[in-house]
Amino acid sequence: MVVVMKPEATAAEIAAVINKAEAVGVNTHPIYGKEHTVIALVGDLTKIERDVFTAMAGVQKTVRIQEPYKLAARNTHPGKTTIDVGGVTIGGPEVVVMAGPCSVESRQQVLETAWAVKEAGATILRGGAFKPRTSPYSFQGMGEAGLKLLAEAREQTGLPVITEVMTVETVQMVCEYADILQIGARNMQNYGLLHAVGKVQKPVMLKRGISGEIKELLMCAEYILSNGNMQVMLCERGIRTYETATRNTFDLNAVPVLQRLSHLPVVADPSHGTGDWELVGPMSRAALAAGADALIIEVHPDPDKAASDGAQSLKPEKFAELMGQLRLIAAAVGRSIATHPAAVNNGRVKEAILA
Amino acid sequence: MVVVMKPEATAAEIAAVINKAEAVGVNTHPIYGKEHTVIALVGDLTKIERDVFTAMAGVQKTVRIQEPYKLAARNTHPGKTTIDVGGVTIGGPEVVVMAGPCSVESRQQVLETAWAVKEAGATILRGGAFKPRTSPYSFQGMGEAGLKLLAEAREQTGLPVITEVMTVETVQMVCEYADILQIGARNMQNYGLLHAVGKVQKPVMLKRGISGEIKELLMCAEYILSNGNMQVMLCERGIRTYETATRNTFDLNAVPVLQRLSHLPVVADPSHGTGDWELVGPMSRAALAAGADALIIEVHPDPDKAASDGAQSLKPEKFAELMGQLRLIAAAVGRSIATHPAAVNNGRVKEAILA
Amino acid sequence: MVVVMKPEATAAEIAAVINKAEAVGVNTHPIYGKEHTVIALVGDLTKIERDVFTAMAGVQKTVRIQEPYKLAARNTHPGKTTIDVGGVTIGGPEVVVMAGPCSVESRQQVLETAWAVKEAGATILRGGAFKPRTSPYSFQGMGEAGLKLLAEAREQTGLPVITEVMTVETVQMVCEYADILQIGARNMQNYGLLHAVGKVQKPVMLKRGISGEIKELLMCAEYILSNGNMQVMLCERGIRTYETATRNTFDLNAVPVLQRLSHLPVVADPSHGTGDWELVGPMSRAALAAGADALIIEVHPDPDKAASDGAQSLKPEKFAELMGQLRLIAAAVGRSIATHPAAVNNGRVKEAILA
Amino acid sequence: MVVVMKPEATAAEIAAVINKAEAVGVNTHPIYGKEHTVIALVGDLTKIERDVFTAMAGVQKTVRIQEPYKLAARNTHPGKTTIDVGGVTIGGPEVVVMAGPCSVESRQQVLETAWAVKEAGATILRGGAFKPRTSPYSFQGMGEAGLKLLAEAREQTGLPVITEVMTVETVQMVCEYADILQIGARNMQNYGLLHAVGKVQKPVMLKRGISGEIKELLMCAEYILSNGNMQVMLCERGIRTYETATRNTFDLNAVPVLQRLSHLPVVADPSHGTGDWELVGPMSRAALAAGADALIIEVHPDPDKAASDGAQSLKPEKFAELMGQLRLIAAAVGRSIATHPAAVNNGRVKEAILA
Repeated sequence: MVVVMKPEATAAEIAAVINKAEAVGVNTHPIYGKEHTVIALVGDLTKIERDVFTAMAGVQKTVRIQEPYKLAARNTHPGKTTIDVGGVTIGGPEVVVMAGPCSVESRQQVLETAWAVKEAGATILRGGAFKPRTSPYSFQGMGEAGLKLLAEAREQTGLPVITEVMTVETVQMVCEYADILQIGARNMQNYGLLHAVGKVQKPVMLKRGISGEIKELLMCAEYILSNGNMQVMLCERGIRTYETATRNTFDLNAVPVLQRLSHLPVVADPSHGTGDWELVGPMSRAALAAGADALIIEVHPDPDKAASDGAQSLKPEKFAELMGQLRLIAAAVGRSIATHPAAVNNGRVKEAILA
Repeated sequence: MVVVMKPEATAAEIAAVINKAEAVGVNTHPIYGKEHTVIALVGDLTKIERDVFTAMAGVQKTVRIQEPYKLAARNTHPGKTTIDVGGVTIGGPEVVVMAGPCSVESRQQVLETAWAVKEAGATILRGGAFKPRTSPYSFQGMGEAGLKLLAEAREQTGLPVITEVMTVETVQMVCEYADILQIGARNMQNYGLLHAVGKVQKPVMLKRGISGEIKELLMCAEYILSNGNMQVMLCERGIRTYETATRNTFDLNAVPVLQRLSHLPVVADPSHGTGDWELVGPMSRAALAAGADALIIEVHPDPDKAASDGAQSLKPEKFAELMGQLRLIAAAVGRSIATHPAAVNNGRVKEAILA
Repeated sequence: MVVVMKPEATAAEIAAVINKAEAVGVNTHPIYGKEHTVIALVGDLTKIERDVFTAMAGVQKTVRIQEPYKLAARNTHPGKTTIDVGGVTIGGPEVVVMAGPCSVESRQQVLETAWAVKEAGATILRGGAFKPRTSPYSFQGMGEAGLKLLAEAREQTGLPVITEVMTVETVQMVCEYADILQIGARNMQNYGLLHAVGKVQKPVMLKRGISGEIKELLMCAEYILSNGNMQVMLCERGIRTYETATRNTFDLNAVPVLQRLSHLPVVADPSHGTGDWELVGPMSRAALAAGADALIIEVHPDPDKAASDGAQSLKPEKFAELMGQLRLIAAAVGRSIATHPAAVNNGRVKEAILA
Repeated sequence: MVVVMKPEATAAEIAAVINKAEAVGVNTHPIYGKEHTVIALVGDLTKIERDVFTAMAGVQKTVRIQEPYKLAARNTHPGKTTIDVGGVTIGGPEVVVMAGPCSVESRQQVLETAWAVKEAGATILRGGAFKPRTSPYSFQGMGEAGLKLLAEAREQTGLPVITEVMTVETVQMVCEYADILQIGARNMQNYGLLHAVGKVQKPVMLKRGISGEIKELLMCAEYILSNGNMQVMLCERGIRTYETATRNTFDLNAVPVLQRLSHLPVVADPSHGTGDWELVGPMSRAALAAGADALIIEVHPDPDKAASDGAQSLKPEKFAELMGQLRLIAAAVGRSIATHPAAVNNGRVKEAILA
């Protein structure tokens, strides 16, 4: 950390900063410039509040040199973290595609979509049973009944399931049905929830908040990691900017930046990122080209009847087309799309359940 | 709602939109322009997802005419909501000043601050016992022990207490000690928590999220109101923009805008809004001049020893000076600063506890 | 400046940074931390590009300690700059109110408005003859004919005139008619224009760009100042954020921040800042309470017939009412509203021209 | 356009809106809802200010249905615009790569870079002779001497040249040397300059302003187009958001959005877009995958000696490596990288000039 003193700071004020720093076990290196005195602090500053110095008399500002996350940082972990989910590896050389409906709406809808995305080549099924909605009057999800349908879809298709958990009280319940817990954008800084999912042994996909800074996202991952759960992946899903031509500004720069700063796998969500199904194709291709380890894409058999987010959902045939394009892009960047570990289900089962 | 069709939309696509709208009991008025057909929908659209139409074939976009909040809206409530807290009225002609430390740190600190802000003229005591912190390694608050100190400070000074509640599990506990529940900016869209505080009979101060839109803030208030708790006040506390000269951009425009859209009282938080104690004075004065119903200001007897947010805390003597200025501004806009309803404590008690 | 090396930087890379800095006459202080080596640079860095170091091998980032503006900075100028315009002083203890129509539209309109704002207490007349418009199909202003009408209004009312200059070629022409040159938000970084107005001897009001950082605004002022024109005032007029409830986010925090960083007078423009006449009242009051040295307010005798920006213009009677409120706020912060230096015109003249 | 009346609007206010609309030749369709009356306006509204209605009594807001650009719009132009520059076609099936130094610094530097980028496969040479710089104390470019060096590089390598024009006075001079005129981000809304380049017969690359909305970018293109110059390409180069991990937020969503709204070719600038050479690789690949028609990339033989923007420049060998990756991505999306139309220069010439 560097503490910049005001031009008019007195010798006593400079001494006070030095004393406080040394009192907490940090070495100090004052540098006396023509206008400013600057005090460099050397030592473990992770647990020291920047404000401790900012609030002192004579201090103009403080600048952090080292980021305060440790467990999420690239330099603390040799190589990348890989997360195994039912035989599918996220964070390795293969790119994983997760797909499915925004909300679970019915048995027919979830099973039909699960089979469709499996056939197109997705290896993980997404679907929301608990839905955070802007309006209290909107559909809030099917709850546990929805989780059961997801579990049934997994049983039939063999696809592991990712689904959102919104509250501390339901973490246990969601763990019983899901293979990956999703923390949604609105809950990125819901610290009670982060603690709770840090204490279970399930992979967690943590979404960047709609105005989350990249370093805040990493600090939120640190909440989970420091509670003992090391299976965390980070998800870019669009940020809020002044631009209104797209629902959000899907920030693909975050993909290479997160990979530079952290060893955790990076997932891109072009469906929420853009909010517009016509953009999901180009931005999925772009996300792979930028280096994403996984994609999560909304697919709905009948988007204009979807209970939520129909405008950003692909029809199964469009999704299958996109998977073909993604295979080409993956090859162009020296990767491939992960395939299903084993054919656990056969066509008869499928026909049976859809009958 | 207005549904704008694409220039190339077919007659069948137009008919499909009309049929869907009428199926949910909404009247339709198609208008055939030279380039676009536009379909105006008339009726109760509060519970209809905009996406239902956006996702349909041939639709270019949809535009909401009416906001989807009802209980928070100006036109549903004659006059302003006023909230009584221990004899202090928020939302009436008098302006209420809440003050106190960011975090409760010790008995000495909270009592000393409580007496100081009371003497300067504040009528509500603020103080955090549960602290949402960006880093898991930062001080997370004293928890229930902190709540007990706040309750002791109330008992001695007579000042009602406002404090943050962060999780559903602690709502009941916080209600036992606090007079106003604060929902912090990071939890504006923590819907589980909004439901929970909507079911208790305590006033709630809901802070705008760091990237919360004004209409989202009102939708979040709607979550609380629709659960039965009508004692909600809204708090502007700074938003995230590209500007880095201030920690946040304290958006005073929100004060008159919220008062135009809603009947709920509006509180301004210049301490978090600016993150800089030197700006708290001018921006507190500005907030009153813009019409805020209340201010919430951080005061700490020794800001450079504060466990959190020292850089934005005023010393008691600066706060007393500011109160004098605020009385003049309040008078200039035809209001006055609320005073303590009755002198429930005397000097002796104070000396005793501080001895 | 502080150069932060990557954890893996080699001794040779560190030496290269030190050599380059010393080669340009800057002293270096390397500090060897556990993870990072940090090199503090001491000396005159105003003319050294930060990128010079950022681009070097082994460098993680560079952090500026000192801002690169000099002439605009508070510490280079004892006291505040005051600017005299026809006997009215901007930047002194009195608050100056500039008012008038967005665009000059006709002789009748500009004269009627000039008299109305003078009677209400404004001491400078604003009005646009050259209008930067988002659409090439919108009204682009009356040009020189508009300047002549402004000059006529000045002659009759005695009010000095502020008007926008948009191009280098018209600087000379605008100087012949105007008392203050306005650089609009879209041209904040039009460096050719800044050079040109830096070479004339007329006061300049420089508006913050719609996404201008405060330090960029000061750097743009530096362009004017370094060309020799020291009569510069800075104007906050609203920034672009994610919030759409107001046309812009009028950033009043900029008022005290600019006054802390610079000696130049600070003007607030609540009309463009909010884009909404109903907000001009509260935000004008707030701007004064926050410490603005001047206000610039749009007034139009018939806003719904205005050629531009009618939605943010006050009617003369609303403006007069607001002036009364502003006098009270000014008094509450120990200032007063500047009054016209001398009654150079009388009622008869006015009646004559309006007849 | 749709005019939304306030709930309390009177019959007379509604009639006034209808009368005003009909007076300007627009048909009106009032729709009487339970809370609001809404008046749909049908006809040519391109030249009608929205504010004309917003400012009227009883009006709550107005909503544009149709965008006010015409010449830039997709639906007015069958197929895409293609622009031929010295035998290279921009906007066709092939992707064009422009490359070169940020600033022209010396004969050696520009010729060496020109040959290097040509050999790697670029078909257009970029380089700045006039540099818009945040600080008046920074290097401002070589001016006409720089243009001459660019022309010499073109003569020797056969690469057409793109360079920035900053002022109306230099448009003619820049036209004499350049093949494409670049309008920089800071000048996106410098309307005098847009008019001037609209009147010459040179292709123009218009960069999105740092806070330019997509629709504003199209309106600025409209300024050029409506002056008669139809050879306009649009360039995404990063926008300003709250995120500071990257210098700008390179908004790749703009690529498919612009292509949906307009027929003009779309260029992506990952160098300025990210400000960080390590991100130029992934984001260039992503831009191609998202569908960009061209890329413009900064290359410098010795980035840590660059006079500007060294931190975002690639070394020639990194650029050559990237070109190989781009060929693969182009193929994966069914395109290819444009190649030089004819080998106009040979190795001997090159050796001669570099000797």
